[in-house]
Amino acid sequence: MDSRRTPFKGISKDVKGRLACYKQDWMGALGSGVRILAPTTYIFFASALPVIAFGEQLYRETDGSLSTVETLASTAICGIIHSIFGGQPLLILGVAEPTVIMYTYLYDFSKGRQELGRELFLAWAGWVCVWTAILLFLLAIFNACSIITRFTRVAGELFGMLIAVLFIQEAIKGVIGEFSIPEAEDPKLEKYNFPWLYTNGLLSIIFSVGLLLTALKSRQARSWRYWTGCLRGFTADYGVPLMVVLWTALSYSVPGKVPSGVPRRLFGPLPWDSTSLSHWTVIKDMPKVPGLYIFAAFIPAVMIAGLYFFDHSVASQMAQQKEFNLRNPSAYHYDILLLGIMTLICGFLGLPPSNGVLPQSPMHTKSLAVLKRQQIRKKMVKSAKECIKREANNLEIYRRMQAIFIEMDASPTQSELQQTSSVAKELENLKEAVMKGDDGANEKGKFDPEKHIDAYLPVRVNEQRVSNMLQSLLVGLSVFALPIINMIPTSVLWGYFAYMAIDSLPGNQFWERIVLLFITPDRCYKVLEGVHASFVELVPFKYIAYFTLFQIVYFLVCFGITWIPIAGILFPLPFFLLISIRQHILPKFFHPSHLRELDAAEYEEIAGAPKLHRCLSPKDNETPDSGIIDNENEFYDAEILDEMTTSRGELKHRSYKEERFFQVHPEDAVRSEQKPKG
Amino acid sequence: MDSRRTPFKGISKDVKGRLACYKQDWMGALGSGVRILAPTTYIFFASALPVIAFGEQLYRETDGSLSTVETLASTAICGIIHSIFGGQPLLILGVAEPTVIMYTYLYDFSKGRQELGRELFLAWAGWVCVWTAILLFLLAIFNACSIITRFTRVAGELFGMLIAVLFIQEAIKGVIGEFSIPEAEDPKLEKYNFPWLYTNGLLSIIFSVGLLLTALKSRQARSWRYWTGCLRGFTADYGVPLMVVLWTALSYSVPGKVPSGVPRRLFGPLPWDSTSLSHWTVIKDMPKVPGLYIFAAFIPAVMIAGLYFFDHSVASQMAQQKEFNLRNPSAYHYDILLLGIMTLICGFLGLPPSNGVLPQSPMHTKSLAVLKRQQIRKKMVKSAKECIKREANNLEIYRRMQAIFIEMDASPTQSELQQTSSVAKELENLKEAVMKGDDGANEKGKFDPEKHIDAYLPVRVNEQRVSNMLQSLLVGLSVFALPIINMIPTSVLWGYFAYMAIDSLPGNQFWERIVLLFITPDRCYKVLEGVHASFVELVPFKYIAYFTLFQIVYFLVCFGITWIPIAGILFPLPFFLLISIRQHILPKFFHPSHLRELDAAEYEEIAGAPKLHRCLSPKDNETPDSGIIDNENEFYDAEILDEMTTSRGELKHRSYKEERFFQVHPEDAVRSEQKPKG
Repeated sequence: MDSRRTPFKGISKDVKGRLACYKQDWMGALGSGVRILAPTTYIFFASALPVIAFGEQLYRETDGSLSTVETLASTAICGIIHSIFGGQPLLILGVAEPTVIMYTYLYDFSKGRQELGRELFLAWAGWVCVWTAILLFLLAIFNACSIITRFTRVAGELFGMLIAVLFIQEAIKGVIGEFSIPEAEDPKLEKYNFPWLYTNGLLSIIFSVGLLLTALKSRQARSWRYWTGCLRGFTADYGVPLMVVLWTALSYSVPGKVPSGVPRRLFGPLPWDSTSLSHWTVIKDMPKVPGLYIFAAFIPAVMIAGLYFFDHSVASQMAQQKEFNLRNPSAYHYDILLLGIMTLICGFLGLPPSNGVLPQSPMHTKSLAVLKRQQIRKKMVKSAKECIKREANNLEIYRRMQAIFIEMDASPTQSELQQTSSVAKELENLKEAVMKGDDGANEKGKFDPEKHIDAYLPVRVNEQRVSNMLQSLLVGLSVFALPIINMIPTSVLWGYFAYMAIDSLPGNQFWERIVLLFITPDRCYKVLEGVHASFVELVPFKYIAYFTLFQIVYFLVCFGITWIPIAGILFPLPFFLLISIRQHILPKFFHPSHLRELDAAEYEEIAGAPKLHRCLSPKDNETPDSGIIDNENEFYDAEILDEMTTSRGELKHRSYKEERFFQVHPEDAVRSEQKPKG
Repeated sequence: MDSRRTPFKGISKDVKGRLACYKQDWMGALGSGVRILAPTTYIFFASALPVIAFGEQLYRETDGSLSTVETLASTAICGIIHSIFGGQPLLILGVAEPTVIMYTYLYDFSKGRQELGRELFLAWAGWVCVWTAILLFLLAIFNACSIITRFTRVAGELFGMLIAVLFIQEAIKGVIGEFSIPEAEDPKLEKYNFPWLYTNGLLSIIFSVGLLLTALKSRQARSWRYWTGCLRGFTADYGVPLMVVLWTALSYSVPGKVPSGVPRRLFGPLPWDSTSLSHWTVIKDMPKVPGLYIFAAFIPAVMIAGLYFFDHSVASQMAQQKEFNLRNPSAYHYDILLLGIMTLICGFLGLPPSNGVLPQSPMHTKSLAVLKRQQIRKKMVKSAKECIKREANNLEIYRRMQAIFIEMDASPTQSELQQTSSVAKELENLKEAVMKGDDGANEKGKFDPEKHIDAYLPVRVNEQRVSNMLQSLLVGLSVFALPIINMIPTSVLWGYFAYMAIDSLPGNQFWERIVLLFITPDRCYKVLEGVHASFVELVPFKYIAYFTLFQIVYFLVCFGITWIPIAGILFPLPFFLLISIRQHILPKFFHPSHLRELDAAEYEEIAGAPKLHRCLSPKDNETPDSGIIDNENEFYDAEILDEMTTSRGELKHRSYKEERFFQVHPEDAVRSEQKPKG
């Protein structure tokens, strides 16, 4: 807490900590060789697609002043800078939806002022970036990141919900727009004849709904039952870009008689077009902005600085969750300083700035954890096999494996002694599994490198800068792929916006609680049977409902603000306000332990209960002869019958066997038992 | 078995059995009053929709010789006859897909012969019906129904799969057809201009896929978590017709500039049109058919008689499964005789005959079981409450309830003594629950009429003829609703065909085994975790695979036959052949106990195992350093991480509590425990 008093203290600590491991951040990646490309391409696709979507959105909202060229360029430039100079190289940067919304407001404002107009929009936005950068510098210097814990779940989820609703709004607006002639276009063109316009609209419904449904399906591929693990994993990781490619390909299957321009496709300037080249010189126009507007730029800058400070820090925090067991230190303060510098550069270049993005940042760490696990596992299994071959004793086997783990886990910021003791603790289970082979030593309990190492390996992350650097370079290169990107139908993009919205909802406890409000009491057992958030069991339903209603009302206010023409720029204000409402007002209405659950720092889950009996339903409390109960019972009966009937109407007989055979490879199992026939 | 030797023995036994309860079949329904309308409307919608779809299919395939008027009329006439004179009034009759296919072949054949042509098609089909009726009479007289047990699951499911594939084929053909000009139409009409033709095609994709997806969703409504039980039940029971109405309404939302005829709608003659009226006099044309063709009609008649005998008996069997505890006797032999008579009537009237249909017949019984349960429950609860009020002892309470049950369960075919003893056995659990209140009698164990009666009530069915009669009358009335039915877009019908196909697959063990073949061994634990058919555990995978491959090959042969122009009429032949293959050839390749499981008479299920550990995966058997294993592990890791991560990339913490609170009405629960914080 006292660190807040000493300026620069946070930054200098961050710099010291990261410098110590800077060399290893680069060298560490060499060991993984070609395998580093897996997390690289994974994150590249995950971050390039939204950036393209936001570019198209900006192109429409700013009448072409900004486009996909600029959003890709900003993401690439900031990404490369961050991967080289950044404090936490696991953090992924990109142009995000809040930036797009703010830039839309900025454009609407300057378009309406004679002194600015469309021409000086980017120059004025440059001034906004200057103020934003100054504010971020101040926040970094005065160690503001230490207050990040006050940004609780309630604010984050409210913001997430707002973005989701704005995405849905964008998708609906987009699809409806496909049925009408775009403003700037010549309505006499063949493709704007009514039949073709209508055809375009129908195609856009098919493509957007198609993309939405297939993308949502492919995301779940990993838990499918079919296909090999390889294919399932590939589909889950790359399903969404694959579906964009698939639907784009399908959009070329329209017959030749349909005029070109149906369906509509992305349309943005190419990087070598004059419109793209012109505003690399925005910095020259900045002095032309009238003084009054330079100062007025301070107001949006406060909003943007607040948003960035919040978003960047939370994304960084998510990339460094304690379950990842990161070895290298964090650098919140220094990263905010660097964010200020990058915002300044983007402002001067006339680009929308980038900041840390969710969920790509934790996705990045996750994919690097998988990579590290594979590496450690491979080496340890190899050594254990060697030891077993030359009949070393168990202790020796374990010692060898521990040495390998410590070697691969080495961090320049920890002394060797520190490390050895902490690792020994983490590997205790593995040690036990190895040593068990000594006594008794029947075949079953014996140490099996393949099986046991996998089961007891602690989580480690391949912390380095190369994957971040490479993915940023790929984003940069995709600027030159714009002629290909422009083949995507706009309707596929509307589907993608809807996909982003729906995909962001599960895990948002605000959303999960809204859904809970619609479950009738007699169905609550279904929630308890499945895995559920801990608040469901620990907070009385009444308080869950009150809290959620408060959130819904607050959300509607926030959403309403975005509709106000120019004052909409203040839309982040209620979020900042929420911090103090949460701290000072909510505790007066809710018990602290309930608030702790409803606004939990961590996502706490409880495993499902075994199937509960129906008698838990509340009918005991009601009057016996009421028709409602009769009806409820009728529906239960019908539900049970539904479950027990095949589509032909055949009833199924279910047996609950005490002793059961688990046949995974039934060929191997010798079957002696004959099933008794009922 | 000896009954097979004495002609008429089966029929006379059936008639005697049913006559005894004939009066009660009518009077019994009076007690249920208005409530009988619930199963009536439910079955009406379930049977009217497919009949409309088949009518439209026939209209297209027979160039308008037959249409929805005829299929509805046949269903209504046969339904009314069966509800009055039928042996088993729970059986629902209707024009089914096999009939449509056979009539299509008959039409194709007669269209190609000069002596018959389109004009004498119905007269010739009348002769086919005559032969079919004669064959059915013979089957009934010589008690052939006793061999129905030889029609095993393997034949039934093969047939079901064929129908499903034909439905899908119909749906695809239909949607593709929407993109081109129908043969008989004038290509110069505005609606057949290319842009409108293409628009019609796109609309048909939207409507058919829309209907398919929403119908599939609404079918599962009963297991939803949201809404009240009432709404969920209503959606599950009437969701499909509701969706047809919804998408029809949506189809009227196309803008006014779209020419009429886009989207295409059902088009069939109305019942008062001359085309419909003309062929009520088919019987007059029958003598005009040349003698050679009268004899040739014997060949399709053998096929149809075989199909009907099979379909009708199986549908009847399904409506009388032993779990329904029916009180009144079956009437297989007599019902086949009656089917022959109805076929004769339909032939003379130029209508496609009806036969017993699946899954509507067991759906009918099921809905009547729900009705009966409500009735018995209501009376018993009322009497128990009265007894409790006047502080009667437990034995008296039970005696009163038993008396009510016996009264409501009365069957003219059982003596009172027989019944009392069997009922006493079935009500043993209820008796125990009632009597427990006497000793100790803490509040918890005390008898609670609401709860215990519901839990221990045996299944009974409201066996009567009224619901069948009423639903047939409704089908008959809907002939006059044809102007409204003709508002349905054809594309909605294609979606409905696809829906019927997909909806019929779950519970078809042949399909479930095909799916099983695509599950890699490392995913089998997922099957074992869920509820699964018993053969999965009881038959080695190798034999499951062989058996399924045999079925697939056999299925492809059957499907191939339907493509042969005129010989396609023989498509039921392989099914009859399968009976003897199953009896004489399959036992040579498969162990009898395996065959018993793979071709089980009943659908036997095993409840899911608790979550198995991943170590069941077969990796132990493979070489340790192979890349495949590394990959598999990687995907497991990623899958576990997927499950444990929210969409924002936040990791979830899952706790497994030993003691847990079940809060359904959390307001009532006093919470003393504070959750320990990790």
